[in-house]
Amino acid sequence: MDLGIHVIGDLRDCDATLIDDLDYVKNSLFAAAESLSVTLIADSFHKFSPQGVTGILSIAESHISVHTWPEVSFAAIDIFTCGTKFDPMLAAYLLSEKFRSQDPEYTVLNRGTGLTVTESQFSNQEL
Amino acid sequence: MDLGIHVIGDLRDCDATLIDDLDYVKNSLFAAAESLSVTLIADSFHKFSPQGVTGILSIAESHISVHTWPEVSFAAIDIFTCGTKFDPMLAAYLLSEKFRSQDPEYTVLNRGTGLTVTESQFSNQEL
Repeated sequence: MDLGIHVIGDLRDCDATLIDDLDYVKNSLFAAAESLSVTLIADSFHKFSPQGVTGILSIAESHISVHTWPEVSFAAIDIFTCGTKFDPMLAAYLLSEKFRSQDPEYTVLNRGTGLTVTESQFSNQEL
Repeated sequence: MDLGIHVIGDLRDCDATLIDDLDYVKNSLFAAAESLSVTLIADSFHKFSPQGVTGILSIAESHISVHTWPEVSFAAIDIFTCGTKFDPMLAAYLLSEKFRSQDPEYTVLNRGTGLTVTESQFSNQEL
């Protein structure tokens, strides 16, 4: 068993207008979190000048982040979930679709390979 | 040229007491950011019950995160910096040292390979 799964996504050829829209990116990230049924702890969103958005969700199961560069129609996402009951690829596909990426590329990393942490240790996590 | 570099670190055999100490983890993450001279935007830190710490720094150049599982002496870090003037491995080594990892393993991913974004587009980023 591994401790968790980390999906890194390079989303090319996105819709530049959408990925420069703070509210749209925010709603997309929350939708991604909801698709996984993870537990939100905190969120941080920022709009850059002249362009670009950063959004990070801290979740009990690790984190979900996006950084966008509308000037090159690029969004960098990463979704790290610990535990075996989540499939972060679902959220990666959802974000790729939301941002209208025509050329997404994913890297999937197993984190903490071979470490045995019982599910209850995740479900008991509290603030 | 690539848009940025993303270092993923699985830090095994850490000092379980240190990586369960919220203030220690927080100071370590800020030290890592300082070592790279990146620009802080926001931070989010949480202590879990019965154990474990999550810390995420949102930086103008992307993000730095750590999630710890003291019960298996494991810390998962990731450091993503855009631009060519940063070496996120420096911060990875620093965090590994701070957490006293005896068995660190790093994966280095080039993000946005081949994308040409001028440095000024990073340095002009503002809230």
